[in-house]
Amino acid sequence: MNTTANLVEQKIVLNNSVSVDCVIFGFDFMQLNVLLVDRVMYDEKSGKELFNDLTLTGNHIFEEEDLDEAAARILFDLTGLKNIYLEQFYTFGSPTRINRENDKAWLAANGRDPNHRIITIGYYSLLDTDKVTLEWKGRNVRWVPVSDVTELAFDHMEILQKALQALRKKLTREPIGFELLPPKFTLSQMQRLYEVILGVTLDKRNFRKKVSRMKYLVPLDEKQKGVAHKPARLYVFDRDIYETTKTELLDFAI
Amino acid sequence: MNTTANLVEQKIVLNNSVSVDCVIFGFDFMQLNVLLVDRVMYDEKSGKELFNDLTLTGNHIFEEEDLDEAAARILFDLTGLKNIYLEQFYTFGSPTRINRENDKAWLAANGRDPNHRIITIGYYSLLDTDKVTLEWKGRNVRWVPVSDVTELAFDHMEILQKALQALRKKLTREPIGFELLPPKFTLSQMQRLYEVILGVTLDKRNFRKKVSRMKYLVPLDEKQKGVAHKPARLYVFDRDIYETTKTELLDFAI
Repeated sequence: MNTTANLVEQKIVLNNSVSVDCVIFGFDFMQLNVLLVDRVMYDEKSGKELFNDLTLTGNHIFEEEDLDEAAARILFDLTGLKNIYLEQFYTFGSPTRINRENDKAWLAANGRDPNHRIITIGYYSLLDTDKVTLEWKGRNVRWVPVSDVTELAFDHMEILQKALQALRKKLTREPIGFELLPPKFTLSQMQRLYEVILGVTLDKRNFRKKVSRMKYLVPLDEKQKGVAHKPARLYVFDRDIYETTKTELLDFAI
Repeated sequence: MNTTANLVEQKIVLNNSVSVDCVIFGFDFMQLNVLLVDRVMYDEKSGKELFNDLTLTGNHIFEEEDLDEAAARILFDLTGLKNIYLEQFYTFGSPTRINRENDKAWLAANGRDPNHRIITIGYYSLLDTDKVTLEWKGRNVRWVPVSDVTELAFDHMEILQKALQALRKKLTREPIGFELLPPKFTLSQMQRLYEVILGVTLDKRNFRKKVSRMKYLVPLDEKQKGVAHKPARLYVFDRDIYETTKTELLDFAI
């Protein structure tokens, strides 16, 4: 059963109907970005550019891969990073996923049947934009501020919006943002992180009140150094305290 | 392109690699149940029963169906119910999903290749056990208390556990349980609902304290009737109040 031909055949069958798409969010203190790829279509004869759409980054699943492994490979391919936070958030499989003319033309030009439905499993990731060196490998990959994205190829706009929803929900429920802060941080930096990712402005007083109830945010006997303004107190996030105090039930919408 | 042969062929390709599995939870005030199907394998010659495993209820996706529609069809098929709460929670696609002898034998006996990987999209649902008339249609479908389930076919035990996790998380964050209570209910009934689904015993005093902060739980000027014990106050769940007060950010683990 394990002849190469058989493996290749099985890989094709699997790849033909299922893919993984990664919504890679990049945070900096200015804005929330998303990693996008230019999909350029050229006229065969004249070589002239016909259209240029932006897409998310996706790929097929290899025969020996688990879904998480496929997502990690896609992320590694573009960023060179391993062991990055990746979360499966939703699977998309509408029969009308491909109904735009550009998408159909692009698929046909790449030898693929635009009428063949592909079900895609969505993952999102959250990185520090500044720490990523993008691996170009001939593709035009770039960070785009999420708030600037108004149109994407295929149903990628829907995928992006659902990923953003999932990320924001997760951020308000679980401490997934602290790795994007310095190990010792000020409450202003923390507030800024939440504001950038949630896309809102938070009231400083309310924010501090909430934060003061988080036992896993530990104030240090130490202040900022080398700042022009009055130095603020530094805090650390204590994962152990979080893990032992998080078993709160029934905390919905209270 | 739209010949019948072509459509059938496409359906087969899609169905061959992807399925939908439904974890249908049934609540009654005694326990949390899950809907399972007996998968019996008989010896071809003697007709003797070789093994009987329990499975979740799943099916292929039809060519014209969205994923949600496939899940709703599977649920309708077994319960005769429409417009039921169904939530996509995770997609399973490990290359080792099928590695048990019984599963391989059963697939082979049903003309399917045990080495062909199927990726399955998991949905869960929550019903009132007592309100469901199971549609047998020749299958042995039955409610089994979740706490009694120790082994299932394929990777269905993993799917069940992940669904239970997702259901419990959802229940502690959002008011998804109130449709299982009478329109007017007592706090004891509500506490029981949470205890049954979460699989824990809750401290009555703490529970009442939490509940008193839920503005969308409205006490009535009305008490239970026809009970042997001291009649308790009745409450209603006010969805409008919930919708207007739920926009709380940063409520993680506080």
